[in-house]
Amino acid sequence: MSQNIYDDEAFHRGYSTLPRSREGLDGAPEWADMRAMLPDLAGQAVMDLGCGFGAFARWAAEQGAARVLALDLSERMLARARASTASENVQFVRGDMLDAPLGEQPFDVIYSSLAIHYVDDLQRLFQRLRHVAAEGARLVLSVEHPLFSAPSSPAWETRADGRKVWPLDSYLLEGWRETNWFVPGVRKYHRGIGAYVNALVASGFRLDRLVEWAPGPAQLAEHPEWLDELHRPTFLLLSASAVPGGARGRTKDT
Amino acid sequence: MSQNIYDDEAFHRGYSTLPRSREGLDGAPEWADMRAMLPDLAGQAVMDLGCGFGAFARWAAEQGAARVLALDLSERMLARARASTASENVQFVRGDMLDAPLGEQPFDVIYSSLAIHYVDDLQRLFQRLRHVAAEGARLVLSVEHPLFSAPSSPAWETRADGRKVWPLDSYLLEGWRETNWFVPGVRKYHRGIGAYVNALVASGFRLDRLVEWAPGPAQLAEHPEWLDELHRPTFLLLSASAVPGGARGRTKDT
Repeated sequence: MSQNIYDDEAFHRGYSTLPRSREGLDGAPEWADMRAMLPDLAGQAVMDLGCGFGAFARWAAEQGAARVLALDLSERMLARARASTASENVQFVRGDMLDAPLGEQPFDVIYSSLAIHYVDDLQRLFQRLRHVAAEGARLVLSVEHPLFSAPSSPAWETRADGRKVWPLDSYLLEGWRETNWFVPGVRKYHRGIGAYVNALVASGFRLDRLVEWAPGPAQLAEHPEWLDELHRPTFLLLSASAVPGGARGRTKDT
Repeated sequence: MSQNIYDDEAFHRGYSTLPRSREGLDGAPEWADMRAMLPDLAGQAVMDLGCGFGAFARWAAEQGAARVLALDLSERMLARARASTASENVQFVRGDMLDAPLGEQPFDVIYSSLAIHYVDDLQRLFQRLRHVAAEGARLVLSVEHPLFSAPSSPAWETRADGRKVWPLDSYLLEGWRETNWFVPGVRKYHRGIGAYVNALVASGFRLDRLVEWAPGPAQLAEHPEWLDELHRPTFLLLSASAVPGGARGRTKDT
């Protein structure tokens, strides 16, 4: 069970000030690269894991998605998502992605933005997703890059020559990390890139693309401070396809 | 064209003292994990890119490989490799993996240990390999982990509390790195994990496994200093299969 920090009042207030909260999809610097990984959504059955304020679910409906199941743990976020969504093709459901019923109808596209790093049992999650994925279905997800979450003291240091370094340790020490993000005690689950890739493959997905996100030239011109991303990326984007035959490993649940 | 540092006398003397040079495959801590990625070699056509002193090529012949093409740039290493190899199934060839003729007969298994990080044009290399790979052929390779090669000043730092950190920068700044390894000016080509994965996929390989190598409990008991590997891995291991249809991208050469 993931921590439901998004319903914490102080956290929620802080999170609501982020560009991605105020401006929706275009407020997220990595959105253009996520979008480039997505197929045409017209007529597709779409799932959004960790839908937040519902920006992606609304966009999917605008693209002509036949139905959108949008899941989140936070009642506060779902309340705002529901209030700002008119489309009848979008269903917002409160639940943990490890346990919530996902129905019996297959999905063509499964999307998740910066939510799966709150989940500890990745294998269970991907096996559940493979079980409800149509053959060839696309899984497009982003998580915090493991280089961002790994260190025991995650903070930039500036050297005498002006160079910034990210003091890395604990990269392969998989497990929970507590950080101070708007409030103390925000719990995220750290794992290396290999752990993501191998859990996908073992669950019956083929990896199509792995992007360690960096800003493009236009973004750097507008946000020179994003140069830091070239030294230590913040976002990891993965695109995968459900392969025939389904999960290769043992299916722990359905 | 890769730098031929292995024929430098001082470098060669230093490199020859490493456990992997003195003890062969079992002297390399990551060998057991590389071996676990390999299929049965009996009757297979095998290629070894960057064969060094020939330990893997000899082992492949012992496993019953039908033929082994073993490539290296270093005349010094090939001389020792030839002198210590009796099997007629092994052919040692001097050449750059980006240019050397690979023949017209397909290969079932392509292996490379810690050599591909000397190559700049990865896409060209993987497309060449896909061209000579039988359908379903396995590609098993190791490279220096990008976390090892990335920093502008690659060296551990010990903090007041005894904690060691690896000051990371430049992770997504792809390009040549010059390091001091036995001799100054050893050139390796740094790229992120995504660059390896996406070049494989674009060249017609399916990624089967990605291992950020860490020592097991028995290895840690014998070599407590290898605990550092859990904080910043040194080796990246990749296992892939040639998929039907071949390279998806443009084939630059044959």
